[in-house]
Amino acid sequence: MGIVVQKYGGSSLSDAASVKRVARRIVQAKKAGHDVVVVVSAMGDTTDDLIDLAEQVSPRPPAREMDMLLTAGERISMAVVSMAINDLGFSARSFTGSQAGVITDAVHGKAKIIDVTPGRIVSAIDEGHIVIVAGFQGVSGDTKEITTLGRGGSDTTAVALAAALRADVCEIYTDVDGVFSADPRIVPAARKLDRVSYEEMLEMAASGAKILHLRCVEYARRYDIPIHVRSSFSTLEGTWVIDPADTKEEDMEHAIIAGVAHDRSEAKITVVGVPDKVGEAARIFETLAGVEVNIDMVVQNISAAATGLTDISFTLPRADGQTAMGALARLQEEIGYEKLLFDDQVGKVSLIGAGMRSHPGITAKFFSALASAGVNIGMISTSEIRISVIVDENQVEAAVQAAHTAFDLDATEVEAVVYGGTGR
Amino acid sequence: MGIVVQKYGGSSLSDAASVKRVARRIVQAKKAGHDVVVVVSAMGDTTDDLIDLAEQVSPRPPAREMDMLLTAGERISMAVVSMAINDLGFSARSFTGSQAGVITDAVHGKAKIIDVTPGRIVSAIDEGHIVIVAGFQGVSGDTKEITTLGRGGSDTTAVALAAALRADVCEIYTDVDGVFSADPRIVPAARKLDRVSYEEMLEMAASGAKILHLRCVEYARRYDIPIHVRSSFSTLEGTWVIDPADTKEEDMEHAIIAGVAHDRSEAKITVVGVPDKVGEAARIFETLAGVEVNIDMVVQNISAAATGLTDISFTLPRADGQTAMGALARLQEEIGYEKLLFDDQVGKVSLIGAGMRSHPGITAKFFSALASAGVNIGMISTSEIRISVIVDENQVEAAVQAAHTAFDLDATEVEAVVYGGTGR
Repeated sequence: MGIVVQKYGGSSLSDAASVKRVARRIVQAKKAGHDVVVVVSAMGDTTDDLIDLAEQVSPRPPAREMDMLLTAGERISMAVVSMAINDLGFSARSFTGSQAGVITDAVHGKAKIIDVTPGRIVSAIDEGHIVIVAGFQGVSGDTKEITTLGRGGSDTTAVALAAALRADVCEIYTDVDGVFSADPRIVPAARKLDRVSYEEMLEMAASGAKILHLRCVEYARRYDIPIHVRSSFSTLEGTWVIDPADTKEEDMEHAIIAGVAHDRSEAKITVVGVPDKVGEAARIFETLAGVEVNIDMVVQNISAAATGLTDISFTLPRADGQTAMGALARLQEEIGYEKLLFDDQVGKVSLIGAGMRSHPGITAKFFSALASAGVNIGMISTSEIRISVIVDENQVEAAVQAAHTAFDLDATEVEAVVYGGTGR
Repeated sequence: MGIVVQKYGGSSLSDAASVKRVARRIVQAKKAGHDVVVVVSAMGDTTDDLIDLAEQVSPRPPAREMDMLLTAGERISMAVVSMAINDLGFSARSFTGSQAGVITDAVHGKAKIIDVTPGRIVSAIDEGHIVIVAGFQGVSGDTKEITTLGRGGSDTTAVALAAALRADVCEIYTDVDGVFSADPRIVPAARKLDRVSYEEMLEMAASGAKILHLRCVEYARRYDIPIHVRSSFSTLEGTWVIDPADTKEEDMEHAIIAGVAHDRSEAKITVVGVPDKVGEAARIFETLAGVEVNIDMVVQNISAAATGLTDISFTLPRADGQTAMGALARLQEEIGYEKLLFDDQVGKVSLIGAGMRSHPGITAKFFSALASAGVNIGMISTSEIRISVIVDENQVEAAVQAAHTAFDLDATEVEAVVYGGTGR
């Protein structure tokens, strides 16, 4: 049997008892004949506690030192998981990101993995050990400084190690049963997906589904690593994130729509009355890039011929709202726009499915469902396999429910009730 | 000006406020024109908390993983001290033991430093940074595994770095004002020593004085690094631990007796009725070495000619008492001794001073003082500059006080009172 990479998040490692539970789970995989490499996040609230400590000491801690501090969190969890495994009679060895050969660029706080050189891991596997690796961290190839990978970093560590070790699968253990067709807190009839393609998972991650981070899925797609997202609290099969072309099952169900995602972390800015001249839009977005604000959706209306003015709206992370407004305000005289509007009471609802390519009419059906639910659409953006709309924040739930039902995503056992409720 | 190495212990780094206070102190040294290298222990109770966590997970955590776990403690404190310095407008860089080039043997939990290769430290100093180094930890030269140095490890790290960097001084910051002539909790008239020689400090450390660890003093003597033990809560001069030959002051006070140390951590075992034959004592102590019990004092009585039997008494760490008794019990038939006596209600009181060599009569005066105080002597052992006695545990305080007074160690301002109290 081959190598299995497992990743356990902080919510699966909240205390000594859960560390022991995870250890038993790891040992099961070893007993089943696999070579097992485990990636761990920091236990429970450790990372938040360390951030609190840093904030008490300094309002602007240097990023290099912040990385030194935060990497202590995974160091603690990898050591105790290893201890718990040894206590079950199996031999485990823990390794930091640096020791595991996770080589990154030198950008502290959000480093990117540029190479994995897992020589020590391979040796430890060959010696029969279960290997525990600290997620979220690496070492800069140039500066030899310790780095962290930023949000979703432990998932990315797991997939990158799985790729470097040519593992059979990368299992991402979490506190839910898998990837759902919508957030079950909003749609009680949401279904666990048995399979989802890399490209659909990418769009879902980019559209606010928090279960897997974008970078981790990109990495898995590039190296064709099957991800199995599953619960650390049950032995049920979870969701496989794979390339559909890899599956040999002829009768694999190809749903047209994989799911409905939503995101409440964005805000909308509208630049009103921009002179409709070449280069004005470029000036605006260059300015935002200059202050490191990432833009998501952009809409520009056709200019009214009479005035020669146009409006440009875009969405951005809420946390960057004041930075962006400040930078644009400094640009008013130069560009000569009329005014800026800021709205942080918005939400994004996205319909995602590879079947969109071959099935016309999806957009019409989606918008019709939203209309029937009384949801007003503010902005629209699409990709080949995704349709996203910006709506009022307080209409997000209604929009997600309406879309979920309209595309027959509701679970069978409650189908009748839900269909009745929406009337379509 | 040259390099100053400073070491701050956990009691000086108990919370964010004390971290900031230490940072101000470090910056003062930098402002005074020194290149500053700081060695830190884990903050406050961090190490104990991590040990508790390990014990919750496993009753017998592997030493390698324990080292991985515990080294997180200094990693946290070095990062936050560095942040606090940066916040004061000075540039600081933190380094783990491994990054600082602290090369050890491969004995987890009590590794010995075998080399220091401080290339990164030197570069950081040359770039103008204040350097913060995690104490207590290193990396094995052979196995590349992370190691910890055991008790007193951070002091040893500081002295080893001071030696490798050819520092002018190694300042050990603690929560008391320096090295005292006796424990001030027992002898209120105990005096802070301005200077003490390496060899006296070694004997004091070996005799129970907890202020500096034996290994740290050994390292300082070997490389002739002046240690300045001082309080992190005041700017007073503390105690200089030096080679008296290095001082140019003709009038340096050479006290005959440096101080009185005591130790309540030992127990006494007596093997009664051992046949007085060649090799029996060796058998006993080989057995104890085999179960890794370290012996301190040993006394063998001359055998009574009539019986051909002798008694052998020795002291050992109390924590090893049951291990030693078990090992010896298994030896009874082979050796044929009569019985074993175990006494953990003992204490050791030691008189230490380089002047003993040239001043006869010290032993007589010491024993006489103990007799006057009604203290019964159980065992005696001596070195060139030390006399140690084992007494009943509840007579330790009286013995320390009597010796301190008899050798004129009491501070001047309370001299009359104390002399009156002891009657000599």
